[in-house]
Amino acid sequence: MDIAEFRKRGKEMVDYIADYLENIEKRQVYPEVQPGYLRALIPDVAPDEPETYEDVLKDIERVIMPGITHWHSPYFFAYFPCANSFPALLADMLSGGLGCLGFTWAASPACTELETVMLDWLGKMLKLPEEFLAGTEGKGGGVIQGTASEATLVALLAARTRIVKHVQADHPEWTEVHIMSKLVAYTSNQAHSSVERAGLIGGVNMKKLPTDGKFAVRGEEMRKAIEEDKAAGLIPFYFCATLGTTASCAFDHITELGPICNTEGIWMHIDAAYAGSAFICPEFRPLLDGVEFADSFNFNPHKWMLVNFDCSTMWVKRRADIIGAFKMDPLYLKHDHQESGLVTDYRHWQIPLGRRFRSLKLWFVLRMYGRRGLQQHIRKQVALAKEFESLLLADERFEICAEVVLGLVCFRLKGSNDLNKTLLKRINNSRKIHLVPCQLAGLFVLRLAVCARTTESRHIHEAWTLITQLASELLCDNHH
Amino acid sequence: MDIAEFRKRGKEMVDYIADYLENIEKRQVYPEVQPGYLRALIPDVAPDEPETYEDVLKDIERVIMPGITHWHSPYFFAYFPCANSFPALLADMLSGGLGCLGFTWAASPACTELETVMLDWLGKMLKLPEEFLAGTEGKGGGVIQGTASEATLVALLAARTRIVKHVQADHPEWTEVHIMSKLVAYTSNQAHSSVERAGLIGGVNMKKLPTDGKFAVRGEEMRKAIEEDKAAGLIPFYFCATLGTTASCAFDHITELGPICNTEGIWMHIDAAYAGSAFICPEFRPLLDGVEFADSFNFNPHKWMLVNFDCSTMWVKRRADIIGAFKMDPLYLKHDHQESGLVTDYRHWQIPLGRRFRSLKLWFVLRMYGRRGLQQHIRKQVALAKEFESLLLADERFEICAEVVLGLVCFRLKGSNDLNKTLLKRINNSRKIHLVPCQLAGLFVLRLAVCARTTESRHIHEAWTLITQLASELLCDNHH
Repeated sequence: MDIAEFRKRGKEMVDYIADYLENIEKRQVYPEVQPGYLRALIPDVAPDEPETYEDVLKDIERVIMPGITHWHSPYFFAYFPCANSFPALLADMLSGGLGCLGFTWAASPACTELETVMLDWLGKMLKLPEEFLAGTEGKGGGVIQGTASEATLVALLAARTRIVKHVQADHPEWTEVHIMSKLVAYTSNQAHSSVERAGLIGGVNMKKLPTDGKFAVRGEEMRKAIEEDKAAGLIPFYFCATLGTTASCAFDHITELGPICNTEGIWMHIDAAYAGSAFICPEFRPLLDGVEFADSFNFNPHKWMLVNFDCSTMWVKRRADIIGAFKMDPLYLKHDHQESGLVTDYRHWQIPLGRRFRSLKLWFVLRMYGRRGLQQHIRKQVALAKEFESLLLADERFEICAEVVLGLVCFRLKGSNDLNKTLLKRINNSRKIHLVPCQLAGLFVLRLAVCARTTESRHIHEAWTLITQLASELLCDNHH
Repeated sequence: MDIAEFRKRGKEMVDYIADYLENIEKRQVYPEVQPGYLRALIPDVAPDEPETYEDVLKDIERVIMPGITHWHSPYFFAYFPCANSFPALLADMLSGGLGCLGFTWAASPACTELETVMLDWLGKMLKLPEEFLAGTEGKGGGVIQGTASEATLVALLAARTRIVKHVQADHPEWTEVHIMSKLVAYTSNQAHSSVERAGLIGGVNMKKLPTDGKFAVRGEEMRKAIEEDKAAGLIPFYFCATLGTTASCAFDHITELGPICNTEGIWMHIDAAYAGSAFICPEFRPLLDGVEFADSFNFNPHKWMLVNFDCSTMWVKRRADIIGAFKMDPLYLKHDHQESGLVTDYRHWQIPLGRRFRSLKLWFVLRMYGRRGLQQHIRKQVALAKEFESLLLADERFEICAEVVLGLVCFRLKGSNDLNKTLLKRINNSRKIHLVPCQLAGLFVLRLAVCARTTESRHIHEAWTLITQLASELLCDNHH
């Protein structure tokens, strides 16, 4: 394919994508294919000789589309949103076209510098404490990670390095592994599975703290755990707080937990993967109060702030802590400006070495929506969740299982878990809307998250009509 | 921006990218900006109200381009190539438009299934042993990681989990951390810095084995290390072999090392990040001999196989080993087909949870180039490196510092390291071509890697003309 053909095909692809998104609600949101469906549709081996673009393109509808779960359908209410907006798509195209890697400043200065400034812009929109900003002389700053899982892990590793150094100062005879065997990290029993995984990867003990009636960790529980663990000779060093849990969008009490962490020298990382985007609205910003006690903070603009995946933004108060956990300097990655102090080499901030020019997406989105446009998006989606909540409240067969704070509604039919499992199965088998479940205090619960950018009130009402209809049938079946 | 504007702007962006790539050699390959240049060019805070697309677009040339290192310029010879092709760009656009996440099979079946089949296609092109393929009943299979660093780490963590279980079977009283304190991993002293980092992250001791005159690890060195470490009570468990080191494209002797690893129960991971793409050519496939002894193998089509970043392909013989290291099953990620055996949930294979639909890029590239088209690309670039080698050989002021096997040439002026440091500085300051250095046996060495897809013989000759001219001036300066 030469440049002339790329121009032609690229424009066709833009139209294909536009057509796809324009007509997405006509597609069945959740696919009907069975495991292994795709292998039978294509050859066993790659072709020896080039095929034409037409050959490839016609297979998109034949091979790929039947197996797509349409995340951007307004009938998609599963998991949490995965952002998609036109400015971000354009920026991503540009990023692909430039195709530069930003592992060091020198590898593409614009890639590094735009990221640092965009993280400052976004940090200011969130009203993060000054210490989290890079500015020209700050000790903190932000970075774009691929996912919140990576941010959680990077924070844990930085905390591990910091505590090991600290303990070795008092006990120079202790090896790193000996110290690691005494370390204990905490998180909520509602935290995302990736937090437990970070503990596993980092080889440290990760304890899950019990939560209160609102599925949130309180200071008291943490204090108790710390006392017990210290009495047993362990060293508490890391706490991953969640603002907006995956199951029910619960918020740990970081105003209580933060001061304890600070007193005990525990690194507090805040995972606000989903909820973080809402903090750009003044009415939701109080949910972030307590961030001043944190060492690191992370949320995913690629979830709810209209920046296409992947863009997980993370800030630290002391970038030296992060860099210290990873820094390696082979000659082929050294460059003239390295020691100048003004320069950020993001490879020291993350697990991978290579990195795409992801801050372009953030730049395009922040500018083309403006702060107000993004606030509108958040507010609209919260209103839609509230609308669904009010429909539920008016039907006494249902119960709401967690406070509806943002765009997620957790609900169930009053009755057994089996009843609700069957309801969910019938909902998803209808293929008209898509939901996933969660477990809350032993109950099997259905989650409706407002996901697509184009979700409107009518989609919420259609979803409700379907759910109540299937619920009525189910209750009737059970009655007979 | 509505869909109609996206159609317009998207097409303009396709032309912008095509223009950029068509005229890239007219741009200075390495930027002249100073650290901190970008912050001064844009506002301090994000705008409150939306800006127009025109506002954003005009800043691309004003703000971004002056700070870009042009990785796809035919005058770019630094690091290793970062792939860029039109089919991959188109596939990436489609992936962005679909915007689905493939963390489980159910989250988008096509995303998971195409990946599994593409990794089989590619595995067959490389003539990997059958055990590495998934097929319909295989125990192995492939996955796309973001980078080789992640593949190295995932393999190390899988190996760590496997050995811990194994040792605990004999010593049920030993804790995981106690066992970890005895573990020892090996790699070459020429291995990429990410291998050392994987050891750091995984909390295990990583020893660098000495290399021979060709910068390769031999079996004898490993055998010696294992004996010493076992005698000291340590447990060797992981070896990361490199095929095509970053510094000099050296190849560890895996036909010697593999059998030792197998006998000792050491997990052998092969990192062929750069060189792996060449193994699709029969004449280079012997370099991969010994892969049959490996537990896992990884290379980066995003380096040298025309698939845009990121696409790092990894295969394992027993996927249960990988999954076992990570598996966590919260209810919100469970789905009906999970236990069917036919289904792959790639979230268990990697560090992040979310993942883009990256196999589309592989599919487009493999089909639109065909095996032969990709072989041609590799062969052409190796021939260009050989051409540069022959120019060097004809100038006795220079020496070649490592065998030229693929597309990398390591060379220096005969003389001191300082002389060569100055030469490199002058070359890069010319901004006409871009190189990075490496260190080989204490020598400061210049690396010329054939990178851009569009590099031709004339670019090699222009580079050589510049290098010899600057060398002459330098030698003349030194003489006076």
